[in-house]
Amino acid sequence: MSSSERVVVVGFGPVAARFIDVLEPSVVSEAVQLTVIGSEADAAYNRVLVADVGVGRTSPSAIGLSDADRLASLGAEVLLGTGVRRIDRARRQVLLDDGTVRSYDRLVLATGARPVIPYLAGLNPDPLHPALPDGVTALRDLADARVLRAVVERRGDVVILGGGILGLEAALAAAEEGARVTVVHHGDYPLARNIDDGGGLVLASVLRSQGVRLVSGAKAVGLEQSGGGAFTGLRLDDGRLVSGDLLVLSCGVRPRVELAEGAGLPVSSGILVDHSLRAHHDEHVYAIGDCAEVRCASPSCGNCSGNTAPSGLIGPGWKQAEWLAESFAADLAGNGHRAAGGRLRAAGASSGSRRYVEAALPPVLMLKARGLDAVVAGDVSANPWAAHEDGTAVALWADPQQGSYAKMVTRNGVLQGLVCVGMPRAGAELVLLFESGAVLPSDRSSLLRLDGAEASSSASASVTDPASVVCRCAGVSRGSIEQAAVVGCSSVAEVSASTRAGTGCGGCHADIRTIIEQHFQQPASV
Amino acid sequence: MSSSERVVVVGFGPVAARFIDVLEPSVVSEAVQLTVIGSEADAAYNRVLVADVGVGRTSPSAIGLSDADRLASLGAEVLLGTGVRRIDRARRQVLLDDGTVRSYDRLVLATGARPVIPYLAGLNPDPLHPALPDGVTALRDLADARVLRAVVERRGDVVILGGGILGLEAALAAAEEGARVTVVHHGDYPLARNIDDGGGLVLASVLRSQGVRLVSGAKAVGLEQSGGGAFTGLRLDDGRLVSGDLLVLSCGVRPRVELAEGAGLPVSSGILVDHSLRAHHDEHVYAIGDCAEVRCASPSCGNCSGNTAPSGLIGPGWKQAEWLAESFAADLAGNGHRAAGGRLRAAGASSGSRRYVEAALPPVLMLKARGLDAVVAGDVSANPWAAHEDGTAVALWADPQQGSYAKMVTRNGVLQGLVCVGMPRAGAELVLLFESGAVLPSDRSSLLRLDGAEASSSASASVTDPASVVCRCAGVSRGSIEQAAVVGCSSVAEVSASTRAGTGCGGCHADIRTIIEQHFQQPASV
Repeated sequence: MSSSERVVVVGFGPVAARFIDVLEPSVVSEAVQLTVIGSEADAAYNRVLVADVGVGRTSPSAIGLSDADRLASLGAEVLLGTGVRRIDRARRQVLLDDGTVRSYDRLVLATGARPVIPYLAGLNPDPLHPALPDGVTALRDLADARVLRAVVERRGDVVILGGGILGLEAALAAAEEGARVTVVHHGDYPLARNIDDGGGLVLASVLRSQGVRLVSGAKAVGLEQSGGGAFTGLRLDDGRLVSGDLLVLSCGVRPRVELAEGAGLPVSSGILVDHSLRAHHDEHVYAIGDCAEVRCASPSCGNCSGNTAPSGLIGPGWKQAEWLAESFAADLAGNGHRAAGGRLRAAGASSGSRRYVEAALPPVLMLKARGLDAVVAGDVSANPWAAHEDGTAVALWADPQQGSYAKMVTRNGVLQGLVCVGMPRAGAELVLLFESGAVLPSDRSSLLRLDGAEASSSASASVTDPASVVCRCAGVSRGSIEQAAVVGCSSVAEVSASTRAGTGCGGCHADIRTIIEQHFQQPASV
Repeated sequence: MSSSERVVVVGFGPVAARFIDVLEPSVVSEAVQLTVIGSEADAAYNRVLVADVGVGRTSPSAIGLSDADRLASLGAEVLLGTGVRRIDRARRQVLLDDGTVRSYDRLVLATGARPVIPYLAGLNPDPLHPALPDGVTALRDLADARVLRAVVERRGDVVILGGGILGLEAALAAAEEGARVTVVHHGDYPLARNIDDGGGLVLASVLRSQGVRLVSGAKAVGLEQSGGGAFTGLRLDDGRLVSGDLLVLSCGVRPRVELAEGAGLPVSSGILVDHSLRAHHDEHVYAIGDCAEVRCASPSCGNCSGNTAPSGLIGPGWKQAEWLAESFAADLAGNGHRAAGGRLRAAGASSGSRRYVEAALPPVLMLKARGLDAVVAGDVSANPWAAHEDGTAVALWADPQQGSYAKMVTRNGVLQGLVCVGMPRAGAELVLLFESGAVLPSDRSSLLRLDGAEASSSASASVTDPASVVCRCAGVSRGSIEQAAVVGCSSVAEVSASTRAGTGCGGCHADIRTIIEQHFQQPASV
């Protein structure tokens, strides 16, 4: 045991699972002695798909990302349903709920994020230990999914508080599966924090046409409850009551930082880590995923200016997980572990040459649902009609009745922001152009035709570019998926197993299927 | 002489010229004894092109529409530079300025319209006899064109008051020919009475990019004049002064109705005529063109509900001229003129079966200039973002920096109004769809691609439809122009001589050239 590096991972969500996946060879070789501590009863599963479980489209087992028994058989210690009481950095130990301790050489915090519980009369205001009444859920874990499932199955009334991507996706799915759904939100339209006026209005109109009732400009103040305390309705500050059988709180998430805070580690929005994903002031502690904020201590670091708060998206978390596991393995190799069984270096020169840097571009928000595609990225606030002195120009397509909208904000021809609703191919192309920084064609309207009736076989060059990213969650290119088809993968599941494409939000499944079909010239199964 | 019908035409503009053209066989056969009375020194010329003469792009002789000597040689009496003092309906005579009279069996009033002279300090306010100071012109006749020409040739400062189609076309032409041009107008943007906000803003931006300075939201109050009384600047109500060498008044036109009014004929905006183009209450008097308002006496007539004011466009005037001349000829034939030399019937059964009805559709406003195409038709005010209960939907494309804009207002899929700026092919297609009442494709954005780089060889079906109108002024179809090419017309001038296509505003010359080139597979001359 003394020849092994003791790595303790706190949290067992998708990011921890990815980290463990990549670290697995070191576990098998016994270079690493791994302990994983998860607070839920289930091993890691794809949290992005919890709403799909909730509406009955998929099952808990289908969204599993890790197999606890298999990990144990490889020699890892897997503790499920186990809380961590505190971290003793001096002794390099974590203290568990059951009173036992685990010692570490390296501690990886992957505690994720918790739902924001709004201040509403009738809700317990303690954010760390929310005790939600019957009929109220934050739709964050599999237990929440079961609650939603029961209401959807009896075609009940679901009230969703919050107009963000996750709330809208849940709303659309529940409505399509037969529930009556009302989304209650602050702004004039959903996604109001990210989208522009025109896009928001088109989005709202499509949502309504999909059977989702919208209560806009609403401020919720409290719950109405039955004699037994169960949710019966949401009271708004103007006196209106939105009745329902289930309230889904979809008010965003906040990084889970209290363990780190309790251990005296610097925290901002998330646990502050440097470009080695190592906590400030403690070379034995790391953080990845929704709980981690990459911001180094140097005030002049160009990568750490601007907003460094965790994105809440799975893609960056998975990148961090892979980077950190590879970094550990590199440290191990740098120490000649194979020959001498030496320890991983906790803060070594070999990892010092690698830097983890978050993508400079603002994240791309994608709403993928049956009957509605929407994507928003960058700064989309520019007024199309204003004269801009700085090379900014705006091109706009709106056909609200058809549910389509596109806005392209460019500076000197390069996209600075985009909105695309109801035009999935144009949206995909615009995202590629946004991320590549390419100059748009001077006839911007040419980008609209990708979704036209005649366009199905004439995707633009960049959409068929092998380097273009198809699965944004896992960062898998078209070329990699085509290669998987070449070596025989003939279903989405096989491609996912081989490349990880499609293992995140699942929004790219149709694209993967198309690529397989193009290769085999016949329909592909999921 | 007693066997001839005495037809007196008052006015010798393009509409009178077309009337005389079509009536010519009856003049040659001496069935009609024709007198034409024009107040200008010149015979009819294409008034639409006066601004082109003013900037030196064409010559007075090139825009001539009638040959007074030739008419005289056919037996007509042509009086140029001659005013009509009054009409004596009881005696069926017109009294001329020179004191002589002309008797008529039928009197055709083609007195056209006069420029509106705004109330400005320094301008003579008598609208019937405007005495404009030096350096001020209404750009309505060839004398006005000569005044503009002198200023453009020395690259002087031209101030245009009014943001309508004619003012903008003059502004663009003068700017391109080297003058410094300022357009002063009421609204937030030019064409404010017809266009929507978005289209107006794009139009304004294109005008600026073409070198036209815009003074918007302006109310002019008076002239600044030199010691000798010549125009030196236009004073606005907020105190600003717009200096210049020439003021072009482009404030619209008003039908010239005073002769008819003086003779006690009913007048509204124009001289009221029925569906025989005959004045109310006088079966010997007719009116055509800009002075005529087709509105019959029946309050229940569906064709005469709504706005019946003269359109001010050449196309309807020419249609009236042709209809009336043909109607006269039909009366003649119905009376057995050829056999017996009998008179035209003034109010006969043979013409009673024909009805002249103005097109039910609102007129299509087209701005055609080098570097700027714009078209507006119908009701374009609908808000794209509003929910419409009546099947109204709005689709919108805007790329202000590229100078392109399109708005399609539909009801149940049929265009009710359109705006198109900077997209000539899309504009032409939309006009065809507007006039045909066809249902738009559900993907409205497909209409934008006609102007794309790839679209040159893939015009839509309706644009290549032989029945589609190419020359809107003369109402000539694509098929007629193709037929002219088949029989040997190999230049625009030859096609114009053969079909009249291209004899109006000239905006279709490029289209005619394209049709010729497609037929001969080689470049065509003008």
